[in-house]
Amino acid sequence: MRRKGLASMAVQAAESSAGAAGIPAAGTSAASDVSLGSAVALSCRECGTRVPLGPSFVCLECFGPLEVAYELPTGDPERLRKQIEAGPASMWRYAPLLPVPADVADKPNLNPGFTQLVQADRLAAELGVTGGLYVKDDSGNPTHSFKDRPVAIALEAARAFGFTTLSCSSTGNLAGAVGAAASRAGLRSCVFIPDGLEQSKVVMAAIYGGDLVAIDGTYDDVNRFCSELIGDPLGEGWGFTNVNLRPFYAEGSKTLAYEICEQLGWKLPDQIVIPVASGCQLVKIDKGLRELVELGLVEDKPVRIFAAQAEGCSPVSRAFKDGGVVRPVRRPDTIAKSLAIGDPADGPYVIDICRGSGGAVEDVNDAEIVDAMKLLARTEGVFAETAGGVTLGVTRKLLEAGVVDPSLSTVVLNTGDGLKTLDAVASSSGPSAVIAPSLSAFRAAGLA
Amino acid sequence: MRRKGLASMAVQAAESSAGAAGIPAAGTSAASDVSLGSAVALSCRECGTRVPLGPSFVCLECFGPLEVAYELPTGDPERLRKQIEAGPASMWRYAPLLPVPADVADKPNLNPGFTQLVQADRLAAELGVTGGLYVKDDSGNPTHSFKDRPVAIALEAARAFGFTTLSCSSTGNLAGAVGAAASRAGLRSCVFIPDGLEQSKVVMAAIYGGDLVAIDGTYDDVNRFCSELIGDPLGEGWGFTNVNLRPFYAEGSKTLAYEICEQLGWKLPDQIVIPVASGCQLVKIDKGLRELVELGLVEDKPVRIFAAQAEGCSPVSRAFKDGGVVRPVRRPDTIAKSLAIGDPADGPYVIDICRGSGGAVEDVNDAEIVDAMKLLARTEGVFAETAGGVTLGVTRKLLEAGVVDPSLSTVVLNTGDGLKTLDAVASSSGPSAVIAPSLSAFRAAGLA
Repeated sequence: MRRKGLASMAVQAAESSAGAAGIPAAGTSAASDVSLGSAVALSCRECGTRVPLGPSFVCLECFGPLEVAYELPTGDPERLRKQIEAGPASMWRYAPLLPVPADVADKPNLNPGFTQLVQADRLAAELGVTGGLYVKDDSGNPTHSFKDRPVAIALEAARAFGFTTLSCSSTGNLAGAVGAAASRAGLRSCVFIPDGLEQSKVVMAAIYGGDLVAIDGTYDDVNRFCSELIGDPLGEGWGFTNVNLRPFYAEGSKTLAYEICEQLGWKLPDQIVIPVASGCQLVKIDKGLRELVELGLVEDKPVRIFAAQAEGCSPVSRAFKDGGVVRPVRRPDTIAKSLAIGDPADGPYVIDICRGSGGAVEDVNDAEIVDAMKLLARTEGVFAETAGGVTLGVTRKLLEAGVVDPSLSTVVLNTGDGLKTLDAVASSSGPSAVIAPSLSAFRAAGLA
Repeated sequence: MRRKGLASMAVQAAESSAGAAGIPAAGTSAASDVSLGSAVALSCRECGTRVPLGPSFVCLECFGPLEVAYELPTGDPERLRKQIEAGPASMWRYAPLLPVPADVADKPNLNPGFTQLVQADRLAAELGVTGGLYVKDDSGNPTHSFKDRPVAIALEAARAFGFTTLSCSSTGNLAGAVGAAASRAGLRSCVFIPDGLEQSKVVMAAIYGGDLVAIDGTYDDVNRFCSELIGDPLGEGWGFTNVNLRPFYAEGSKTLAYEICEQLGWKLPDQIVIPVASGCQLVKIDKGLRELVELGLVEDKPVRIFAAQAEGCSPVSRAFKDGGVVRPVRRPDTIAKSLAIGDPADGPYVIDICRGSGGAVEDVNDAEIVDAMKLLARTEGVFAETAGGVTLGVTRKLLEAGVVDPSLSTVVLNTGDGLKTLDAVASSSGPSAVIAPSLSAFRAAGLA
């Protein structure tokens, strides 16, 4: 039942493979000379069927989603840990655990990742968290959102499969990340967004000189359109980071898990709070944490995983609370536009992971989002985008409800930058006073 | 003659020391327990007079500017190099060369620096540079400008001198950097900007919850006002990063020189192009390069230093070209507002350094700034603020004029983020098309 949407995409993909010269689809031919590090195949998350590495994303056996299967490094974990620590200050320090060539850091790319894990003591004090509170601040990435991570991996896949245009459906951040990565790499880009996004995101999606197409509709309309385009000769030679390159793209979010644990001194956190749009990021962070345990890089212990949504687009939160299936939200209405995916592909997996780990899914309204953005800025000097406000707002709400445990170590994700969602706070964040340049005027303002 | 402005500030500072409890001024008492790493005193850049470490900025002997004097590490350069390379991925890897405590990285601060040095091969191809072209991209700092560097050092000085409020006069970027750093550190902040700055910078200056005061005037009016405030009881206990903490603050820009050389494999570049507002950054980068030579960390060779200004506020460029003194610009008029300092304190030093190194000072107009911003985004995926457009625009102009040598290795600085100067490109950077979500609509748009 979960796979209904994917089934139609799989049919499109299968149909498209006939027309797309040299581009293998699932279960058909695959590029024989593809070399993407320790990645060895694509594997269906549902039925385990394996297909060769290629731009495929849906299992033709069961319509389940494909993900990258690895032969990960074996042997002494201490040696692997040292190798990672001696690597570059970017996500490429984890290249041995990713579907990328070993020399990836030497190719023109944005070199994202290894962003700061902020020890948020002042925020912890305000929220009453005693077990250690950390903000993983991905606004430090090159285009100031976590999207640079998955795009960097999709770029390598695009190169490996010979694509000449990099594309995506996006709520804004991804469009900028794809545009920038394509320009650095010398590929053409053509990205698709819903009309009416924040000005910052629109400009950023356009500035890199590729084509930017606004679609009169929601993100889900944009996404459906991109699936159609893959099946059409118009889309020939196009790598859509989050559609036909999705299995590779998705792995980028694992690096958030790797970095958090390394930055905690090679330890798992007790609790982690993650925003949910498609849900892909949460699923892959969970996968990344488990891989570190399997590799012996961290000691196993329970990690409670919490998912955060905006009330105005909270299909996963609603399903978690009412115990039913994830029902699409037709018209998202929230200031957290980067999370406004009404029909989240990985929604059911998010619920499974949160429930199974002893976590939860919760949502907050627009006012709570703005409050949390300001709280984070005021206490830690981190200016998060609305999605970061969602994550911190949910953290606060779940702390107040006694669901998040204040005595445990807790990591909160900020996945984007406040400069991209300026409108959310602009009306309430301006000068305390406008004065003449004189001491008397300053004295009269009463601010000293 | 150069020191006229500073002289009046020195008198104010000397007067203020009487009223400001516990705050030593130049040549008077100094905090005896101040420990700021290898910094041992403040020294006059003009006459060499030394005074103890303290919140002093003007020599009371000759009214020259004070700067930090060090006892830098001696001994095996290889050992120091290894120590640096094993340090954190922030500017604190150079802590032994800065006026900060050895444990600075463990204190709550924004941990700026160690931003990417982008090997700009595609840009080099467009500009005809064959000797290697690099963009030092400081938009990767926590508040997305180079200002996080000097502020991080000023913060340590403020802590050492017992200041409880962090303040500054700012064209925008500095205000955000001070607000964020103060919030992270748990200090109060009150920052001053000219009215009419870009919305992004105003919101960013306010979001961290300190006081933001807009002054009805130019940046130079704001700066004069801050100098008055230091001499008034209203400003008691206030550390102004770029006024009474300026000798410390200024050292932050040295880290740009350190990083560039380390990232080039411990080599000096042949040419470097630096934007000029007050000129402080260029002077300190020059100082940083010389220190690396003195320490034996890089081999000595000539480095040609070029300064970049915006035509609408180009007092240094004009003085360089006409061979006269730097005459203040009363009403700056440029889209590069972060460079709109009409009366640049370090202007004469900039001219000396550029002339002495075989470099030059040049300026570009608003259209050239925008063109350069788009060129950088299109070729390298770097979205620079207008100041970055100034630097690249001047680089291009000087290449075309045969002044910058295309056969030499060249580093261009991007000191800020395009998201903060959106208006400069917003009207010319939008969707290529707005279409219905259908293949026929996309086909009709003619973009495939």
